[in-house]
Amino acid sequence: MNDRLARVTLMRLAEPGDAVMGRLVASRGPQAAVGQIRAGRPDPEFARWFAESHRRGSAVPQRERLTARLERMFASWAARLEAADPIRDLAEGERSGGRLVVPGDCEWPTQLDDLGECRPHALWLLGEADLRFSCLRSVAVVGSRAATPYGTHVAAEFGAGLSERDWTVVSGGAYGIDGAVHRGALAGRAPTVAVLACGADVTYPSAHHSLFAAVRAQGVLVSECPMGSHPTRPRFLVRNRLIAALSRGTVVIEAAVRSGALNTAGHAVSLNRHLAAVPGPVTSETSIGCHRLIRQGKATCVTGPEEMIELVGAMGGDLAPEPRGPVLPRDRLNPETRSVLEAVPARTGAGPATIAVAAGVDLETVLSCLGGLAAAGYVERVPRGWRLRPDRPPGR
Amino acid sequence: MNDRLARVTLMRLAEPGDAVMGRLVASRGPQAAVGQIRAGRPDPEFARWFAESHRRGSAVPQRERLTARLERMFASWAARLEAADPIRDLAEGERSGGRLVVPGDCEWPTQLDDLGECRPHALWLLGEADLRFSCLRSVAVVGSRAATPYGTHVAAEFGAGLSERDWTVVSGGAYGIDGAVHRGALAGRAPTVAVLACGADVTYPSAHHSLFAAVRAQGVLVSECPMGSHPTRPRFLVRNRLIAALSRGTVVIEAAVRSGALNTAGHAVSLNRHLAAVPGPVTSETSIGCHRLIRQGKATCVTGPEEMIELVGAMGGDLAPEPRGPVLPRDRLNPETRSVLEAVPARTGAGPATIAVAAGVDLETVLSCLGGLAAAGYVERVPRGWRLRPDRPPGR
Repeated sequence: MNDRLARVTLMRLAEPGDAVMGRLVASRGPQAAVGQIRAGRPDPEFARWFAESHRRGSAVPQRERLTARLERMFASWAARLEAADPIRDLAEGERSGGRLVVPGDCEWPTQLDDLGECRPHALWLLGEADLRFSCLRSVAVVGSRAATPYGTHVAAEFGAGLSERDWTVVSGGAYGIDGAVHRGALAGRAPTVAVLACGADVTYPSAHHSLFAAVRAQGVLVSECPMGSHPTRPRFLVRNRLIAALSRGTVVIEAAVRSGALNTAGHAVSLNRHLAAVPGPVTSETSIGCHRLIRQGKATCVTGPEEMIELVGAMGGDLAPEPRGPVLPRDRLNPETRSVLEAVPARTGAGPATIAVAAGVDLETVLSCLGGLAAAGYVERVPRGWRLRPDRPPGR
Repeated sequence: MNDRLARVTLMRLAEPGDAVMGRLVASRGPQAAVGQIRAGRPDPEFARWFAESHRRGSAVPQRERLTARLERMFASWAARLEAADPIRDLAEGERSGGRLVVPGDCEWPTQLDDLGECRPHALWLLGEADLRFSCLRSVAVVGSRAATPYGTHVAAEFGAGLSERDWTVVSGGAYGIDGAVHRGALAGRAPTVAVLACGADVTYPSAHHSLFAAVRAQGVLVSECPMGSHPTRPRFLVRNRLIAALSRGTVVIEAAVRSGALNTAGHAVSLNRHLAAVPGPVTSETSIGCHRLIRQGKATCVTGPEEMIELVGAMGGDLAPEPRGPVLPRDRLNPETRSVLEAVPARTGAGPATIAVAAGVDLETVLSCLGGLAAAGYVERVPRGWRLRPDRPPGR
């Protein structure tokens, strides 16, 4: 059994992200790991490591319990191994258009190695884009399935804005934020990456059939589960670590207090990736999680794709434009002229002496300022003195 | 002329916040300041200070220009002094129900002394509440005049929430956020403080007539301008320093890029008061200023009055409750039982062995977990094995 077949087998044995299996594979290699599972029992050194790393205190009965627990794990893996058929898995996966990538392959995204023992054994990919290349400049965009129209609007704007600037979107495949950000990204030219909690060939939710087809055409569907696997709740949570690990940073758009998106945010932080959150109305349940991340200082507040790119992009090279209001004609007046303008009444005219007292400047200055203001169309002379022109430039 | 009459006179001479006048009053006292202005020229030491603190470089012609400039200032103050009638001002102010408070009075809010030379000479108050006592526990709430319905809703919630918890609101008297926060505060029992850029007896905007009457009844109207003064643009900006100085902290609810509220925020920062901002939709122009303050790290993100009180209140004594989602029955299951529950299909039943392989636990555990889950109403036995009950507790 070669390395690829061993990894295809491992996908069938433990749940993705199983740390004990991960340790076994990382320390013994995939082929030897399968061999030990087939033998039905761990090697003594591994059993010692397991007992050491899981014990609380040092009682002998506890050690026996831990040994028994590890043996039960091996037994359940062995039971699954009986049913596994990696050659068929590989052939069927490739028949449905998929490709298997394993560590060491050209298309393997090496940033997944940051996951250590929780690194996936292998990935099934479906789609035109090259995963490794796509993820070099990528941002994870995650959020609530039960998104509001505000959330899906913002997600689509982020997707389109990132894609237009050649940044790849990484997200899941769910309703709400996930779907909206992929749709936005597909409007641009960059690839978009959907990491699924089910098999890469399973459309879940099924209403996303045409969306997944579009992602396959312009991006790539990714899964660490065997083809045909159905999604379960823990698989969603475990899948989130891949979304965080594949990208340079994660932005949360809408998350309620108990959103799975906050789990992805936690992975991003523990992987030393950038974390950002988009604020929303404080009256909205689905923004509570975002505001909490910002309040706690875990996430940077970002309001648009440019600001997200500034966060994850090259230092100084990807700065977002500062928001600026319009420059009003009034801004170009000097302070003395401005204070004279402030003192000119709107309806009934006032004489220069009155204006001078109101503005706190001397009469000579008032007269020269009024001349300039009249020439610029701000004020006009009326029988009783000076007043503002009704059609003056905006701002006063 | 006594101290009070001198201060009433000073209110007529220079614009509020005039730093040169402030320095003159702080160093010479109000009576001597009026005396110098009446004499029409500064004492030599003050002239030297002015020239020193305003010069750029050391050229002699520049010094002469500065001396001339100070003399022009004194001349314009002297011209206003001619027209001033402090005895009438005091009598008319008191006739319209106002009271004058000056530094040293019982009702003088000593936190205004933090303004240094920009401290107001005196304040006119109109209303039932004691200003100094009201501001001991106070929060400034400021924001856009052109507020959205979202902004006015949030402002009213802040006003009511602060007032219910015995915190005084300090704000201006404008449309938008100012008006909404006072209305909210009036729903509670705490006083509310409106600091005006016009005379305390001037209703600006005039549509706020009944609002100002309600503030007078439950709180206090405050102004550093003589009674009857009309508002000008610079007076609004200068007034903002009083709002920031009177309160323990300022919260900005909705501010566009060029909002006057950001000026108040700047005063709060330079006075070492707490600064907070309320986030809003990133699609809203009127939240750009708030998001920028949060992004720049100048303001803390707050989403409700409790969080604002936590920021400005006693350390550890005024903590806001953590937002929490509902506790689902599923949360109380142990991890093993939960993974068995995840593996139980929804429609067609599955046998315990299949469930065991899917859940990754041994058969014995599955059987004991299924028994417990059936007793708790999660699963039921059907001819082909076990499946989820349609009427199971929420969450799975």
